[in-house]
Amino acid sequence: MSDDLRAAVAWTGDAVEIIDQTRLPAEELVLRLTTPEEVVEAIARLAVRGAPAIGICGAFGVVLAADQLGSEATAERLTETAAAVRAARPTAVNLAWAVDRVLAAARRATDGAGLRGAVEAEAIAILAEDREACRLIGEHGRAELPRASRLMTLCNTGRLATGGWGTALGVVYAKAAAGEEIEVLACETRPLLQGARLTAWELQRAGIPVTVMTEGAAAARLARGDVDAVIVGADRVAANGDTANKIGTYALAIAAHHHGIPFYVAVPRSTLDAATAEGAAIDIEQRAGSEVRLAAGLPDDVSVWNPAFDVTPAALVTAIICDAGVLRPPFDATIADALGAPTAA
Amino acid sequence: MSDDLRAAVAWTGDAVEIIDQTRLPAEELVLRLTTPEEVVEAIARLAVRGAPAIGICGAFGVVLAADQLGSEATAERLTETAAAVRAARPTAVNLAWAVDRVLAAARRATDGAGLRGAVEAEAIAILAEDREACRLIGEHGRAELPRASRLMTLCNTGRLATGGWGTALGVVYAKAAAGEEIEVLACETRPLLQGARLTAWELQRAGIPVTVMTEGAAAARLARGDVDAVIVGADRVAANGDTANKIGTYALAIAAHHHGIPFYVAVPRSTLDAATAEGAAIDIEQRAGSEVRLAAGLPDDVSVWNPAFDVTPAALVTAIICDAGVLRPPFDATIADALGAPTAA
Repeated sequence: MSDDLRAAVAWTGDAVEIIDQTRLPAEELVLRLTTPEEVVEAIARLAVRGAPAIGICGAFGVVLAADQLGSEATAERLTETAAAVRAARPTAVNLAWAVDRVLAAARRATDGAGLRGAVEAEAIAILAEDREACRLIGEHGRAELPRASRLMTLCNTGRLATGGWGTALGVVYAKAAAGEEIEVLACETRPLLQGARLTAWELQRAGIPVTVMTEGAAAARLARGDVDAVIVGADRVAANGDTANKIGTYALAIAAHHHGIPFYVAVPRSTLDAATAEGAAIDIEQRAGSEVRLAAGLPDDVSVWNPAFDVTPAALVTAIICDAGVLRPPFDATIADALGAPTAA
Repeated sequence: MSDDLRAAVAWTGDAVEIIDQTRLPAEELVLRLTTPEEVVEAIARLAVRGAPAIGICGAFGVVLAADQLGSEATAERLTETAAAVRAARPTAVNLAWAVDRVLAAARRATDGAGLRGAVEAEAIAILAEDREACRLIGEHGRAELPRASRLMTLCNTGRLATGGWGTALGVVYAKAAAGEEIEVLACETRPLLQGARLTAWELQRAGIPVTVMTEGAAAARLARGDVDAVIVGADRVAANGDTANKIGTYALAIAAHHHGIPFYVAVPRSTLDAATAEGAAIDIEQRAGSEVRLAAGLPDDVSVWNPAFDVTPAALVTAIICDAGVLRPPFDATIADALGAPTAA
């Protein structure tokens, strides 16, 4: 399997480098972000997306905030500046989690000079841990799905979405790396087409067979009997297993359930949110209607409902594949256990 | 309710006039089709679409074939020329049904001159009957759904899809005409966006509130509890009630079932196909992958699965609203009854 794909987020010591995911697959444009404001803007406009990737990006955004404050940097001032980074998108818990973790490192630092090093070290650790978590998700997923060669997925959960080879796509890459037969059915993921633009692009580069279809076609495909499992990532998994993920996930989960096809959620533990009791408490980001209007050339006065995410109730989730292992129902117990376990790195 | 919308198909005596639906909503371009070849091309590239509308268009295509043959027109030669019209798209039964009906009229004609008049009269009758069927569907639907004010639909089943005010949207127009509160949730309908481009356009013109959303968002919307019913059209209903309709319908039906929301199919009787026992026997049109690739800028070598339709099993259909009334399960009996009843016009 090719390993030449640039990571979604790279740290150069004084800048975050990302591939502008809004330009793929037409163009591989690397953006160099040097201020927290640029990080916020890149996250908000989805130049970088994927819950783990925006967490990592947010962590380095705090380092850039420390650089901006220079000798005036204190944990308190950093927290103020980082608030905008933390709030750049609401649904993925990883962003707030990563920012909070770096700020906690800042609070532990003894002085201004130590603070800069402490936040950078913590951000680098978050990136490294995510890479390792992806590897472990891949291995656990491979063990869980030894006979599954035809996986359906939504959105992008691969190298472009994480610090490693991905979550749901991490399982795909792990199977490919082990020489197992694997084929991906990728839902195109309206309105911003991350499945078609990003997943097809990175899997094709990796030499993994991929077929793109519309979300509307997914249920018909499940009815054909040639899909072994549905596997998706998540932006936030509540304490009870309710899962917020890209809009369209809930429909896939219902259709998988209807056809008796297993439905998996693959996430690093940073996506498990013990502080949110259930899905109903998750803040679902509503995005501009123009994202939907654009494709059809609709005028601005046509009303659009455009939530970026939906919530899949835990009852529709077969298991959660995370770096700590495969979590099964009842998820409240297994998620709590996973969060109590030592971290991956 | 505004009645200024041009019909999907108009007959001028020597040409079929259609609005090029591939250009909406940007441009209202009227195409004048004067040969059966032009009719085939217009149907194949979806310049005109919607099962009833392509049936009507196909019927007039046979008239144009008679004009092309001129004094050499016989029922036999007409049947040969009409074969291409009949086969322009495979899934909607209305096309073959309408062409066959006009050809039967040709066979009943006594001579060449009588033949031209007979086929034209039959095609005009098909158009008139469809208009009346739409009116009746609207009235039956209104009686069936007196308290339903928030209807979700897919694709376009209105004035642009029929000879009248529509099938599923006919119910909407009937409710609006009666002064009832009505609001439409329109799925955008990938890949060709007939819901966003056509349904939103014609409902907005009629002053009926419409909100567009992606197919991926539909299940999440159903979960909110503010949708009273899902109502769609169909391209072919098998003798047992299995329903072929625009890709994405099956997912909607599963999601409606999951949420206990009624799921209606609204069709003229010309869409009921007694000759097809069940959904598995319906020929599902596969369309070019480029329809999906285009939006994402995907290269030609990315594999795409792009069926134009899917089949919803009868078990997921609450009732079929047709011009003969509201058909309920067991559909094999009620569909047979409806086809035995006298025609609308």
